[in-house]
Amino acid sequence: MQYVDFDKTEAFRQLSALCNKEKDFNSLLSPERVKASTVTMGGGLSYSWAAKGVEKAELDVLQALADEQDLTGKYKALLDGEIINTGENRKVLHHLLRGQLGKAVIAEGKDLGKFYAEELERFSIFAELVRAGKIKGATGQDFRTVVQIGIGGSDLGPRALYLALENWAVKEGTGILKAEFISNVDPDDASRIVSSVSLEETLFVLVSKSGTTQETLANELFVKGKLQKRNLDPSKHIVAVTSETSPLAHNPAYLDSFYIDDFIGGRYSSTSAVGGVILSLAFGPEAFKELLAGAHEADKLALKPDILKNAALLDALIGIWERNFLGYPYTAILPYSQALSRFPAHLQQLDMESNGKRVNRDGSPVRYSTGPVAFGEPGTNGQHSFFQLLHQGTDTVPLQFMGFIDSQRGDDVTVDGSVSQAKLKANLAAQIVAFAKGKADSNGNKEFPGGRPSSLIYGKRLTPAALGALLAHFENKVMFQGFAWNLNSFDQEGVQLGKALTKKVLSGNSGDAALDAYSEILEVR
Amino acid sequence: MQYVDFDKTEAFRQLSALCNKEKDFNSLLSPERVKASTVTMGGGLSYSWAAKGVEKAELDVLQALADEQDLTGKYKALLDGEIINTGENRKVLHHLLRGQLGKAVIAEGKDLGKFYAEELERFSIFAELVRAGKIKGATGQDFRTVVQIGIGGSDLGPRALYLALENWAVKEGTGILKAEFISNVDPDDASRIVSSVSLEETLFVLVSKSGTTQETLANELFVKGKLQKRNLDPSKHIVAVTSETSPLAHNPAYLDSFYIDDFIGGRYSSTSAVGGVILSLAFGPEAFKELLAGAHEADKLALKPDILKNAALLDALIGIWERNFLGYPYTAILPYSQALSRFPAHLQQLDMESNGKRVNRDGSPVRYSTGPVAFGEPGTNGQHSFFQLLHQGTDTVPLQFMGFIDSQRGDDVTVDGSVSQAKLKANLAAQIVAFAKGKADSNGNKEFPGGRPSSLIYGKRLTPAALGALLAHFENKVMFQGFAWNLNSFDQEGVQLGKALTKKVLSGNSGDAALDAYSEILEVR
Repeated sequence: MQYVDFDKTEAFRQLSALCNKEKDFNSLLSPERVKASTVTMGGGLSYSWAAKGVEKAELDVLQALADEQDLTGKYKALLDGEIINTGENRKVLHHLLRGQLGKAVIAEGKDLGKFYAEELERFSIFAELVRAGKIKGATGQDFRTVVQIGIGGSDLGPRALYLALENWAVKEGTGILKAEFISNVDPDDASRIVSSVSLEETLFVLVSKSGTTQETLANELFVKGKLQKRNLDPSKHIVAVTSETSPLAHNPAYLDSFYIDDFIGGRYSSTSAVGGVILSLAFGPEAFKELLAGAHEADKLALKPDILKNAALLDALIGIWERNFLGYPYTAILPYSQALSRFPAHLQQLDMESNGKRVNRDGSPVRYSTGPVAFGEPGTNGQHSFFQLLHQGTDTVPLQFMGFIDSQRGDDVTVDGSVSQAKLKANLAAQIVAFAKGKADSNGNKEFPGGRPSSLIYGKRLTPAALGALLAHFENKVMFQGFAWNLNSFDQEGVQLGKALTKKVLSGNSGDAALDAYSEILEVR
Repeated sequence: MQYVDFDKTEAFRQLSALCNKEKDFNSLLSPERVKASTVTMGGGLSYSWAAKGVEKAELDVLQALADEQDLTGKYKALLDGEIINTGENRKVLHHLLRGQLGKAVIAEGKDLGKFYAEELERFSIFAELVRAGKIKGATGQDFRTVVQIGIGGSDLGPRALYLALENWAVKEGTGILKAEFISNVDPDDASRIVSSVSLEETLFVLVSKSGTTQETLANELFVKGKLQKRNLDPSKHIVAVTSETSPLAHNPAYLDSFYIDDFIGGRYSSTSAVGGVILSLAFGPEAFKELLAGAHEADKLALKPDILKNAALLDALIGIWERNFLGYPYTAILPYSQALSRFPAHLQQLDMESNGKRVNRDGSPVRYSTGPVAFGEPGTNGQHSFFQLLHQGTDTVPLQFMGFIDSQRGDDVTVDGSVSQAKLKANLAAQIVAFAKGKADSNGNKEFPGGRPSSLIYGKRLTPAALGALLAHFENKVMFQGFAWNLNSFDQEGVQLGKALTKKVLSGNSGDAALDAYSEILEVR
């Protein structure tokens, strides 16, 4: 496989030549275009790119870019177990958690697809037993609450997915174990959660791949202290999710342990035991398996070389067009679904931690912009907040909308002739058109310049399968962008310096007088 | 008062001439500078600008800008009741909610300072009666939960403040009425909250200044329907916060009503009844009054013309330096405090809705960048997420850190020789220095370019007074930036177009075929 810097490609030169023509979104956004510009994503979802400023000319060169950089070929190499994470010398195997699409991946004699499937079965059975009241707490009481202790990818993804399915599960009557999350090293976080649950009825899921995460270990000991104070044996109330080489593995201090390995990156671990244990406990293993099936469907579609049939690839390429040639340094994620309230925070990690890089996969500085700042909040809430800048600010922010035809609970009210779900969707449709077309006005303050590009992901209802496809779509989008930019999207060296300095501060010898001065005003010690 | 476009000032020319010199943050960030570069903010807080790339040369011109645009003079005119909100022809009086700093403001014969103070007393007494069990629900049960129904400024600010003080109140033993919030028109939002509370023990606070907000009225009727289904008289379970001219005012359908007026903008209304009723119910009116006192203290300090004695003014000017002359289009808000988890979302509205404008206060397009994109999450969580891009991305994002010496609950654990609160602060100090100084490395992937500017707001503990000062600091910062850019920071015409198109969609006659096509794929009707 050949890896080439983005600006060395022929497509880069061609795209640079194209980007000076300003688009007229008023003529661009025809009803025919809206109806025709949709790609199937899996999980019952569709990706609509009608309100993006790309036409045949741009799409042709974007296709040429995909071909020249062999983006789907690189994806296949990843699936087959190539060392894609060059910085850490690791395979990248989160797709394999959802099913096999390439060759069997063997490492040190172990079939990893089989290993992941076995772990899935192990924690599915465990979750069933807990949910059936066959595994109980130290006092013999049923578990009614699950609390995940983890940070970063062990928190944001699983939390976003849990919130996304809570209402769905109520409606489906799957029976819910309520989930909470402790992530921050701020002791107020752990203290608040622990004091809000009934410890006798609480199962903790301790998640750290390395078993050495500072925040997670501190919170584990915080929780253990509280359990012991109540005379509850911690080994009856904590399960571990970790790698087999970690100090947490095969440890009788835990009720049970479920394993991942180094080929599952933190921000890509939601479909492993990292997300799977808590989601299976909360909603039942069947719901989690449906999520995996939705993700697998999206992963499969991402193999198609034709960009108009591959939503993740097309989304990635349009993002590159906007980032490198239109110069937009950010992207807003706007789900019209309260269930997805924390999904933007997960995508923020996924995107910014993967492609927020300034060197290529060989460690040489790149000469072009890479990952954008990603942020967002659910609509309609955002409309009453930061949408002002999106509509009438001095800069253009590309927008990623999401919406569903039906609500999750189906519990609605008719006011002024429409149900709330219809109002939600009417707002969504109206925003897309308002951003694209704008409005002329003789009063400058009431004028909308328009030309704000957006895409829309939509589907019938936010189910586990739809959620899995949504998750995988963005994982694959970010992966394709990383390939096009010739980055290693799967390491995170940017976290190391702060970690090292923190240790020095806590050891009392920072070696930096300015750092000591900050430590002094914050009274660290 | 003279209002001049930013690029017509002499300071603009001088700042443009200054901005080509790259700063060496390694030599800049000396321990002496860290100790000397702090400004008092009120509420026991301090603003440290040591890790911002400004020295005497920049500060002198920024002071000249403040003087030339008479930023504190414009603030005084606002306090005295001038029509600062030109687009809506309104005074801007949220400072008056916290106490009087200028002349008495009289409108239509009414002393508005007195009016706000009277409303404060009315809802303080009401909150005391509810908390004492002297006002009860329809079945005679005490109220134990308060649910705010509101969106935008009626949601984000109050919610952020509630979460910020929940742990404080536990520790202080003020006695808490638990608060929840319904905001989105997504019916799953209201359904989830309403089904999670005991309606007999729940008091709803319905908040809409105009009394016509689509989302809020839909959610009101949703809630009323649920109350009626349980045979609970809604007029015993809902209080209104609105303006006296709204359809909700003086309405026997509500248990009581508390008033604001058109001079309190939504995103500036947290210190009015909009935030005051729910916070006084949740934590007691004394806590809310302490918050007002902290805000008032910050408001008073914001009057100082010397930028090195006025934290809000200095913060505003450094932001302008970074936005207009260094070209950074965003700013990250990073509280090292889980209690402030939703404070970035409030600041996102405050900043982006106020200064996300492309025309000046007279409606003419400006020729310079205005408000940046603001986003953020609490630390240390962000370190395990999007900090990768902040450290090693291709672009520079200015950073706003916050931290406290003590936790709110004082419930902590020692692990590896330090408590979690010390780890939290050590991480904070380490990040500031890592961002500023970076680290050279022969491996490009492990190199940190540094030069990432940050400021730090810190204090002893996050109390109501500290929180009030923090809130007011940002309100005043945004105000000063708006003055310097010659914007009207107090209207939000950008929300109108989407609202109008939504109504058309729901009426069945959108008048736009592309909009109809979107409505069709989303099955709006």
